[in-house]
Amino acid sequence: MRRRLTILGSTGSVGRQALDVVRAHPDRFEVAGLSAASNVDLLLEQAAEFDVGRVALEREPDVSSLPRDLANRIEVTGPGAARRLAEEPVDVVLNGIVGFAGLSATVGALQAGNTVALANKESLVAGGEWVMNLAPSNRIIPVDSEHSAIFQCLEGRDASEVDRILLTASGGPFFERPKAELLDAGPEDALRHPTWQMGTKITIDSASMMNKGLEVIEAHHLFGVPYEDVRVVVHRQSVVHGGAIFRDGSVILHAAVPDMRLPIAFGILHPERVDVGAQPIGFDAATWTFDEPRNDVFRCLPLAIQAGQAGGPYPVALNAANEAAVEAFLEGRIKFLQIADVIEEVLEIVPDFGKMQSMENIEAVDRWARSAATRFAQDIAP
Amino acid sequence: MRRRLTILGSTGSVGRQALDVVRAHPDRFEVAGLSAASNVDLLLEQAAEFDVGRVALEREPDVSSLPRDLANRIEVTGPGAARRLAEEPVDVVLNGIVGFAGLSATVGALQAGNTVALANKESLVAGGEWVMNLAPSNRIIPVDSEHSAIFQCLEGRDASEVDRILLTASGGPFFERPKAELLDAGPEDALRHPTWQMGTKITIDSASMMNKGLEVIEAHHLFGVPYEDVRVVVHRQSVVHGGAIFRDGSVILHAAVPDMRLPIAFGILHPERVDVGAQPIGFDAATWTFDEPRNDVFRCLPLAIQAGQAGGPYPVALNAANEAAVEAFLEGRIKFLQIADVIEEVLEIVPDFGKMQSMENIEAVDRWARSAATRFAQDIAP
Repeated sequence: MRRRLTILGSTGSVGRQALDVVRAHPDRFEVAGLSAASNVDLLLEQAAEFDVGRVALEREPDVSSLPRDLANRIEVTGPGAARRLAEEPVDVVLNGIVGFAGLSATVGALQAGNTVALANKESLVAGGEWVMNLAPSNRIIPVDSEHSAIFQCLEGRDASEVDRILLTASGGPFFERPKAELLDAGPEDALRHPTWQMGTKITIDSASMMNKGLEVIEAHHLFGVPYEDVRVVVHRQSVVHGGAIFRDGSVILHAAVPDMRLPIAFGILHPERVDVGAQPIGFDAATWTFDEPRNDVFRCLPLAIQAGQAGGPYPVALNAANEAAVEAFLEGRIKFLQIADVIEEVLEIVPDFGKMQSMENIEAVDRWARSAATRFAQDIAP
Repeated sequence: MRRRLTILGSTGSVGRQALDVVRAHPDRFEVAGLSAASNVDLLLEQAAEFDVGRVALEREPDVSSLPRDLANRIEVTGPGAARRLAEEPVDVVLNGIVGFAGLSATVGALQAGNTVALANKESLVAGGEWVMNLAPSNRIIPVDSEHSAIFQCLEGRDASEVDRILLTASGGPFFERPKAELLDAGPEDALRHPTWQMGTKITIDSASMMNKGLEVIEAHHLFGVPYEDVRVVVHRQSVVHGGAIFRDGSVILHAAVPDMRLPIAFGILHPERVDVGAQPIGFDAATWTFDEPRNDVFRCLPLAIQAGQAGGPYPVALNAANEAAVEAFLEGRIKFLQIADVIEEVLEIVPDFGKMQSMENIEAVDRWARSAATRFAQDIAP
């Protein structure tokens, strides 16, 4: 039976790879809907190739410049378009949106009763409690490689037998460096990631371990485990992505080559699996290493855990402050190790913003934290 | 609820460790029966400590030398005693018997409708087809660390999603040695096993990779996978014990410290788990390596797979020829690499012995192969 699939953020990295999966298995999917923020040309190209019924664009297009038969496909436009598309009943909504529009779309999809294959970070980092209250168990299938791995290790297990979950981190380009060397590390050093090809922002987050910190917050919400039971382990080879530690000490691990098509395909086809052309894991002369994180040097990870434990506006502020601090670092306004300093200062003065159960409140925290972080970055600039 | 447990081979290594598990969790078990081959003193000590109702001894005891209150506990004696005990209805029969008496007891337990936690090798190597025909799915829980690991990785999975299973091998003391060095390897070299503390015979089997060959045959029967889908990987650290490779290329692995109490406890308490005091896996500065087996040097593994694929009397002959060849090696009558030569010669002349669905036929093959192997060992002796 063909699975009816809506892809939010279809012109982004996750969306394009999802369409690669569909292309390889056309008999398994019907692409019911596609959304994009602004790349109208690619969106329409995709809509034509997959004969998609409903297409949504967050930014109003300049329709006059488009061929009429293509422009007619765009049914939903303007702010909130992705959310309205997400509310249409389908078998699964893949949320590959980057940013807050993704949280709103996740909330809409879940409220409408749709299963969500989730790649949008804000949905859980900023909206974790809100979103998980809307989602009965298994209505969210994580698409991040680490959370997909943990999900696969926990599947079919009795939660009472699980003691902790294990989240692996590549450690980024700086993991082995002495702290003194990192004082002058610039963007060009941080952008050399050992195993994954990723965007600029996430590569910096990988170097600072903030990426893992945000993933710990996501894991806490997704799997309903206390923060102290999420164990982060540095694994430089990025082959083992996550695991579950049982109460007898046994560990179930998930391993796969680093290939985003795997968790994407798993998320949109669950509980089935298909061959997406990923390389098999090599067991010939392979070496896997594991190390503890260096929390004294890479302070973003413990800061994220603290923010997660504090709950409420703190994870929202953490995420926003981090984005502003990374921007300041990339523009040469602050040093690498000062990213954590900026975030820490912001977290110390978070005011009361009410419950994080509405877009308005969450976005208010986000705006406040960005501007606070930008101000702190100016103050400490060398 | 307390689980009613019978332990066959309670005075052996598996049996004694099982009683350690019971000792640590007395509220979880009622020891309903114990059996031993000949160690009557320890058997009676165990029976008294755990207040065991039924006790069986394969060898007729010299009752006159025993205190009467202890001797009275022994209800079943003589050849077949363990099998008769195994037929008593309980929640789980742990079969820790070494040798063919174990196969007979497994058959008896399954025919009586008991669940078997299986540590007896002959039950599957020699009696695989027979035994699996008697066992509906999940009525056998493997207790070998590798098969327990694979069982745990497959649990709750749809078999159609599993592509291959993964069986790890420590590689034994000789894995890195050039073939030329092995020509003169003696028993004292072979008995230095890197990670597990085991008996003499199994340590030689580990050095020759025959242990892994026998486990491949067991895995084939237990998990119903073709021989070509059982992948053996050398993993020197003995932390990863097995896994399942899914059709998308994802791998689920089971890891634990090498501690037999873990698979024993898992086998007798399934689907629950308890803390047996095993050390947790260390992820601090840990290194795990994986290599392909060296089938050109360690030929027992490919020989075992060939025997398994041939089926019928061949696995029985393989196992018996190996035992005779290892004995010849330990007594200095043949060289290490000649173990495989002897087995190969035996496998080339296996006569027809009828169906391997009775103890008589299986034992006839066993006797024939032992004497054939002993003869070949004499012929090729240096």
